[in-house]
Amino acid sequence: MRRLNLDLAERSYPILIDGGLLSRAEEILPFLRTPRIALVSNTTVAPLYMDGLVKALEKVGVGVTPIILPDGEAYKTWESLNQIYDVLLATRCDRSTTIVALGGGVIGDLAGFAAATYQRGVPFIQIPTTLLSQVDSSVGGKTGINHPRGKNMVGAFWQPKLVLADTDTLKTLPDRELSAGMAEVIKYGLIRDLPFLDWLEANMDGLLARDGELLAHAIERSCINKAEVVAADELETAREGGRALLNLGHTFGHAIETGMGYGEWLHGEAVAAGTMMAVELSRRLGWLCVADVERVRTLLQRAGLPVKGADLGAARYLELMSHDKKVIAGSLRLVLLKSLGDAVTHADASREDIVAAIEACCRA
Amino acid sequence: MRRLNLDLAERSYPILIDGGLLSRAEEILPFLRTPRIALVSNTTVAPLYMDGLVKALEKVGVGVTPIILPDGEAYKTWESLNQIYDVLLATRCDRSTTIVALGGGVIGDLAGFAAATYQRGVPFIQIPTTLLSQVDSSVGGKTGINHPRGKNMVGAFWQPKLVLADTDTLKTLPDRELSAGMAEVIKYGLIRDLPFLDWLEANMDGLLARDGELLAHAIERSCINKAEVVAADELETAREGGRALLNLGHTFGHAIETGMGYGEWLHGEAVAAGTMMAVELSRRLGWLCVADVERVRTLLQRAGLPVKGADLGAARYLELMSHDKKVIAGSLRLVLLKSLGDAVTHADASREDIVAAIEACCRA
Repeated sequence: MRRLNLDLAERSYPILIDGGLLSRAEEILPFLRTPRIALVSNTTVAPLYMDGLVKALEKVGVGVTPIILPDGEAYKTWESLNQIYDVLLATRCDRSTTIVALGGGVIGDLAGFAAATYQRGVPFIQIPTTLLSQVDSSVGGKTGINHPRGKNMVGAFWQPKLVLADTDTLKTLPDRELSAGMAEVIKYGLIRDLPFLDWLEANMDGLLARDGELLAHAIERSCINKAEVVAADELETAREGGRALLNLGHTFGHAIETGMGYGEWLHGEAVAAGTMMAVELSRRLGWLCVADVERVRTLLQRAGLPVKGADLGAARYLELMSHDKKVIAGSLRLVLLKSLGDAVTHADASREDIVAAIEACCRA
Repeated sequence: MRRLNLDLAERSYPILIDGGLLSRAEEILPFLRTPRIALVSNTTVAPLYMDGLVKALEKVGVGVTPIILPDGEAYKTWESLNQIYDVLLATRCDRSTTIVALGGGVIGDLAGFAAATYQRGVPFIQIPTTLLSQVDSSVGGKTGINHPRGKNMVGAFWQPKLVLADTDTLKTLPDRELSAGMAEVIKYGLIRDLPFLDWLEANMDGLLARDGELLAHAIERSCINKAEVVAADELETAREGGRALLNLGHTFGHAIETGMGYGEWLHGEAVAAGTMMAVELSRRLGWLCVADVERVRTLLQRAGLPVKGADLGAARYLELMSHDKKVIAGSLRLVLLKSLGDAVTHADASREDIVAAIEACCRA
């Protein structure tokens, strides 16, 4: 089993990575304040993994309140959050009850925000079951819901007590979602880990064939990279660089997700197309060469990801991007690449260059 | 001007207490990250104080987005919170925008929870305009909304950058609300400050006559007491005592508020009746004598507060109290008095004694 420790200012929590973790309730037990959990999952994941987990937990004396939500980004809403609160209150969960998320990023964000806000905060454990959530949303404590006017506009920072990444759950993951997760894995290589980018190019075929050892390595490297960034900038308060660097491709990508309606594009797919826009803009600023751009395009395509943006029109992209949380005092900060493996935040790209980069990637 | 500093683990913020603070925008300006605020108020307070504050702020170059909500505890809901999010997003407030609460506890809780959760957290300033919010809800960082199944069940801890308590705003406060605030002022004397209890008995008439100097002293002593308790137990994690002691009378009081429907009883009124129940129970446990109980009853009555509980029936009280956030792993912790000026948390009161104390106070 691989074990990372995420060390933050006030607390530290372990990330366990291995096949078969879901049946090992003894890994969870020491992290519960009382033997009582609310287990939040969705209609896709629950039939696959909930029974086994509940049985393993009940065997060691843990009482489980199941909460099963509809599946999909379209349900990352106040209504779903309120369903969680309703069950927590109806079953008298108190401030010592641990909320456990079993599912992908949507379940993690929803259950995490419920944990951050139920009775002003209860303990939280993440059991991510998608590649995306194992390498991204389960590390760093971001939780939240969408608002009709923008993605993740309501939320909180709330750190889990424990993250369990069971690589066996990736065996049932649809190809399209495995690829979507790979967009974030590739991102870590692009923003700060060139050797990892090389490794991904060498091992992409084995990763897509779901080789457990390769996946565990990719998850571990991703979590280490994310943990280093998060530990240095826990609350995303750094003016330059810092945690914002994790958003390579995300400002463009969020515009695609919002513009197309939540759920049309998977998050990772939108990030892949958005990454191509960021890379193209970096080339226009003279930081990347054409060969760098093609190298990124090739890897994303090999991972089964889209490299062409949604055809919203550049004006609509700019409108949607202006709502981004990375806007500070009216100025849009984009994450760009000074070179492959070296990202920066940049607030000075001209409107013309941004428009040209968007249009190049929507035409491509 | 009286100036307190609330020192917490990671941050510290000042509480300014004086008459006329609302027109002194220069006290606010140094605490803004950018010269842009969203000013949240209600339909009662806004006509009295919003114009003057907005003019003072605009004079020093601060842009103000006003958000005016309906008045009352019945509006401390998700719907009101969503009204705040809607305006923040529609007017493109970003993560550097400061949310300012101008009003009583409901506005402070709502605006504070919006600040805690909008884009995962933005800066917050409190300008409490009721005695209750000046001595209680503006200190300590508790924010939140009500849920149909229970009061304050959804929320977060979020500390303000600054609290401005303008004693002039108490001149327009209805008598009933002044009395309700006095319930929390008296509470500080009862739980940990016997000299302050003596002072309140000596000065209650002047306080109710709204003597500015006396009110400023009462607010200052209350905030000092609360600050000391909060600093020692910021996130309410102490198993015994700690921040829970601030809830003297609140578990009983919340049952009255929920049982009667939010808004029927003012919070402070419910706390006053609930305090009598806690005091009566403390007498039954042999900790207070009859004279202590009568001393508390007399002071609450002089302050214009109810000392008789709502006639819900003891069974309904117990049902409602079992939802209280102070329930840990199924056991109800009550705040009781070992003696006047010395509160403890106590989980071992018998059901019979609790019922008897409730019934004695509903009969009285």
